[in-house]
Amino acid sequence: MNAKPQFIADAARVDPTATEPLPKSRKIYVTGSRADLRVPMREIQQSDTPASFGAEPNPAITVYDTSGPYTDPAVAIDIRAGLAPLRHPWIDERGDTEALNGPSSRFGQARHADTKLAALRFNLTRKPRRAKSGAVVTQMHYARRGIVTPEMEYVAIRENGRRREYLEGLAAAGPKGKRLAELLGRQHRGESFGARIPAEVTPEFVREEVALGRAIIPANINHPESEPMAIGRNFLVKVNANIGNSALGSSIAEEVDKMTWATRWGADTVMDLSTGKNIHETREWIIRNAPVPIGTVPIYQALEKVDGRAEELTWEIFRDTLIEQAEQGVDYFTIHAGVRLPFIPLTANRMTGIVSRGGSIMAKWCLAHHRESFLYERFEDICDIMAAYDVSFSLGDGLRPGSIYDANDEAQLAELRTLGELTQVAWRHDCQVMIEGPGHVPMQLIKENMDLELQHCHEAPFYTLGPLTTDIAPGHDHITSAIGAAQIGWYGTAMLCYVTPKEHLGLPDRDDVKEGLIAYKIAAHAADLAKGHPGAQVRDNALSKARFEFRWEDQFNLGLDPEKSKLFHDETLPQEGAKLAHFCSMCGPHFCSMKITQDVRDFAAKHGVSDKEALARGMQEKAVEFVRRGAEVYSKA
Amino acid sequence: MNAKPQFIADAARVDPTATEPLPKSRKIYVTGSRADLRVPMREIQQSDTPASFGAEPNPAITVYDTSGPYTDPAVAIDIRAGLAPLRHPWIDERGDTEALNGPSSRFGQARHADTKLAALRFNLTRKPRRAKSGAVVTQMHYARRGIVTPEMEYVAIRENGRRREYLEGLAAAGPKGKRLAELLGRQHRGESFGARIPAEVTPEFVREEVALGRAIIPANINHPESEPMAIGRNFLVKVNANIGNSALGSSIAEEVDKMTWATRWGADTVMDLSTGKNIHETREWIIRNAPVPIGTVPIYQALEKVDGRAEELTWEIFRDTLIEQAEQGVDYFTIHAGVRLPFIPLTANRMTGIVSRGGSIMAKWCLAHHRESFLYERFEDICDIMAAYDVSFSLGDGLRPGSIYDANDEAQLAELRTLGELTQVAWRHDCQVMIEGPGHVPMQLIKENMDLELQHCHEAPFYTLGPLTTDIAPGHDHITSAIGAAQIGWYGTAMLCYVTPKEHLGLPDRDDVKEGLIAYKIAAHAADLAKGHPGAQVRDNALSKARFEFRWEDQFNLGLDPEKSKLFHDETLPQEGAKLAHFCSMCGPHFCSMKITQDVRDFAAKHGVSDKEALARGMQEKAVEFVRRGAEVYSKA
Repeated sequence: MNAKPQFIADAARVDPTATEPLPKSRKIYVTGSRADLRVPMREIQQSDTPASFGAEPNPAITVYDTSGPYTDPAVAIDIRAGLAPLRHPWIDERGDTEALNGPSSRFGQARHADTKLAALRFNLTRKPRRAKSGAVVTQMHYARRGIVTPEMEYVAIRENGRRREYLEGLAAAGPKGKRLAELLGRQHRGESFGARIPAEVTPEFVREEVALGRAIIPANINHPESEPMAIGRNFLVKVNANIGNSALGSSIAEEVDKMTWATRWGADTVMDLSTGKNIHETREWIIRNAPVPIGTVPIYQALEKVDGRAEELTWEIFRDTLIEQAEQGVDYFTIHAGVRLPFIPLTANRMTGIVSRGGSIMAKWCLAHHRESFLYERFEDICDIMAAYDVSFSLGDGLRPGSIYDANDEAQLAELRTLGELTQVAWRHDCQVMIEGPGHVPMQLIKENMDLELQHCHEAPFYTLGPLTTDIAPGHDHITSAIGAAQIGWYGTAMLCYVTPKEHLGLPDRDDVKEGLIAYKIAAHAADLAKGHPGAQVRDNALSKARFEFRWEDQFNLGLDPEKSKLFHDETLPQEGAKLAHFCSMCGPHFCSMKITQDVRDFAAKHGVSDKEALARGMQEKAVEFVRRGAEVYSKA
Repeated sequence: MNAKPQFIADAARVDPTATEPLPKSRKIYVTGSRADLRVPMREIQQSDTPASFGAEPNPAITVYDTSGPYTDPAVAIDIRAGLAPLRHPWIDERGDTEALNGPSSRFGQARHADTKLAALRFNLTRKPRRAKSGAVVTQMHYARRGIVTPEMEYVAIRENGRRREYLEGLAAAGPKGKRLAELLGRQHRGESFGARIPAEVTPEFVREEVALGRAIIPANINHPESEPMAIGRNFLVKVNANIGNSALGSSIAEEVDKMTWATRWGADTVMDLSTGKNIHETREWIIRNAPVPIGTVPIYQALEKVDGRAEELTWEIFRDTLIEQAEQGVDYFTIHAGVRLPFIPLTANRMTGIVSRGGSIMAKWCLAHHRESFLYERFEDICDIMAAYDVSFSLGDGLRPGSIYDANDEAQLAELRTLGELTQVAWRHDCQVMIEGPGHVPMQLIKENMDLELQHCHEAPFYTLGPLTTDIAPGHDHITSAIGAAQIGWYGTAMLCYVTPKEHLGLPDRDDVKEGLIAYKIAAHAADLAKGHPGAQVRDNALSKARFEFRWEDQFNLGLDPEKSKLFHDETLPQEGAKLAHFCSMCGPHFCSMKITQDVRDFAAKHGVSDKEALARGMQEKAVEFVRRGAEVYSKA
């Protein structure tokens, strides 16, 4: 990392490829009960249906948008200034926090006093905040007291995505609109395995879910720039992207860039897993510019502070790190408090031992001292810190399996039960909690993970890495794991931690971040469809309609990756005219199966049999009876 | 396509990147009950475990090999000559076939007589064969008569993959070998949803499965070059790759190249879906050089013969096409005989109508003539042709859903029931049958597809395209569909038809073929693991062991894509030394979680507690009890 003043100048500009609105997309805001509660969404414009398919307008589709102000051309981005602190008034109004004079962690103070760091420091003039003495400032705390916060209302609006308004608006616009609303709004019945997904999310529903611990809203009072979102089984399945420099490379600017890039492609939260130099400063730049909640693993930085010697870690160093990061605004901490001394020998006969970095740090400490983990013993002290800033717990799976061989073993399950015990401790402090999960799991053992998590951890949201369903495809583990992620998301996991193609092999670059995210947005969306999340199918329906009607540009733009789909199309049919053509490269211009379907419809219409009647007559009948019925249909010709 | 003599000269050489053995892999042959029954497998050599992890040899792993003679350096490849007709003596010995004087199809005769085609024609001197009058030459026919053919024995040896010999060999080599055999041989219990997978496949088991129609061995008597393989729920899950030129591009040489490329990356069968010019000649080149069964959709070529005018198709043209292709050696035909006249109106209200090309051709024909499909009406005549050459039926899903919206609708299910009815007709003729399936299906509806197929089609093998689990990711449909493919493979699908990243957008090139295949090998293997296929986990275990021991090269070579995994590793750590280093780019050299696990083991060993004991003591206990037990473990220090 280069600590040159030049860095700041570079950093002020953001790569335009990461901020341009996606093609035909525009940022819209839905205002809530107060003027400063403006929930961003993305609208994808569509073209009209061509005359040969019945000429009708196709209203813009609204989709969930994680990209923050970056994709809003009306907002001037200057990463030296950071994003606007949209939640500031809400936090301030609650009157339960106070501004500090400066960082209260010793490390934070030392870094601020170090003049050598001036050149690479984010220039934050705002003071860190903390709960007033005795106060608890978590969303769970408010929820349990019956308070619907602006954050909860924001989440409700965001989750609904204007779906009802959209379909009702369509239906009100005459018979064509009504037909379109039926077509776009139709959805298969889901199987939610006991989730309780409402037809429409109300602010009160969000409050209740947070109060019960079934959902969290990661929202540190020192990260007022973040746009509230919820992680819970009864909400849309979310996706996390990991970024972070390591001892081997990458700079602050690269990490900020990766964060904005990740939110562009749908990251709902971003974890900064930096382990290299200047991680305090890197984190500050990331948080100040992050429209999504940021998670970290504080033990990583604590380890840096003792030069990588795990045995030299102490509670005091760790505590100082928690406060340091909480005052920067980290929204959730991975805490590996379930890696208990007695569980460590359970890993000795594993194929791949302890693969969690945090888990192995704590294992090393426990072994070196022959003592129970200080994370476990000091868990209530940690809760006090979390409660004072509203940092959510992400209870780490330090003993997760690192291979198919080790899946669902006793070490993993012993830790899971401990995480359940700790969940209840955290909840007594009104702290928000989610539970991390594996890892590497063959398909037939995935559901057991979800079921045991719900059972042992009292329905706290599950946050899983993959799982990878086989070990045999290094270089393609975004796929081995998207298969598992889609399934566990369906079964009830609330947030999926992405895996990039570089997993096990190297550090992800920009392309890998995007590939990993797209694979995981697919998994999350497939899970939403399978659970029967209301409105999840609207986008599939719109895209399929565009596909059927040969609206190529709409097909690209409605998809997760407009760039790549256009590029792929143009490789075979580069001419601009081909994107208006009523054929594609698969069948060529002379014969087209889509066209035949239109013939079927025309035929049915011409012969006085409406589609509906033919369909109704045919439904539920045995194949053999169709012959007669078919004859009826055609005898009218 | 250039019909220049130059083509043949070009074609004689095969791109070396498609024929070099994979790194550290070598071709081996397991000889069966006769000297000419030599079953190819791939052995992947491994390096020894480094001293820090206990210095032990790691014997080569054997994996299933679809690449044919191409990856055998001992075989001289000349695609002008084609591959050796290894099955010729077996076919000949049965004495139930006769060599014809030449093609008996009118089209085949015309093409052979056309001197303008000489330059691009494969020079096959061997005459086509056909069953002697009144004879049936299908594998099912022999199986039902209790005959175990060499093809069946070949399949049995191939499916077992030397697993038992390998593990027994290890176990016999002393305590270290025994431990290694236990480590590599351990596998989680599967959930096979009623499949009956034997611990070891015997030739008699293969015979029985084929006799019962639960498996097929696609093995046209005119494709003696192919290496027998089985498609059935009680065998390893197979993968098909589609290739083929279209009206818009690609040459014969490209298609032959794509076929060899596909088998290199694991295609168990290849479908030639060509619709462009010279498809007769293209097919000949492909079959003569194909070590795997080749499938086609004969109606595509029939349509070319009537210049793309579906309504001009006749039974005579179609019949001639079947004979033409059967005499070239096509191993299975997709026949869309389930697209019946009365089902067509059921598609009128679909989002995407009829998306199967074959389905829409037949729909158009039925509508144009107001008649029942000639494929349905002439189905027994088709059976007679299939039986005379042993072409397997792949009963096409002409009414498969082309969107999530259309999944599992009445059109699809009506066709499925008809395919079940036709399966029984085909079986009466001793014809081998598999059933094609969707398509686009959200996850919660996938299992219903499998269950209904087993029920209506009497356990005939299911052969599914994907299914895609969402429509919103054009450009990434190898992933949307690998998610569905893994699940339906787990539930019981016998062969998965791959989807490439270009699906819906353009024609796949070499890279797309590889990406699609890797995604599908992952799905198939994940399914094998989940079903509990014996020995499936050996490769995962070996790769995980290599990963844990920092045997980087072994990790690359044991995976599905040695090239890409090495490339990815080297992007972050390019130095050759890094591949011997005991750290990776994720944590860097100063702290490594794998290393800590070794410390745990060393600790346990040093303190007189064997891994086994600690594990046994800890197993099945409640978390709270571990404290005391843990204290015991460590009190010995």
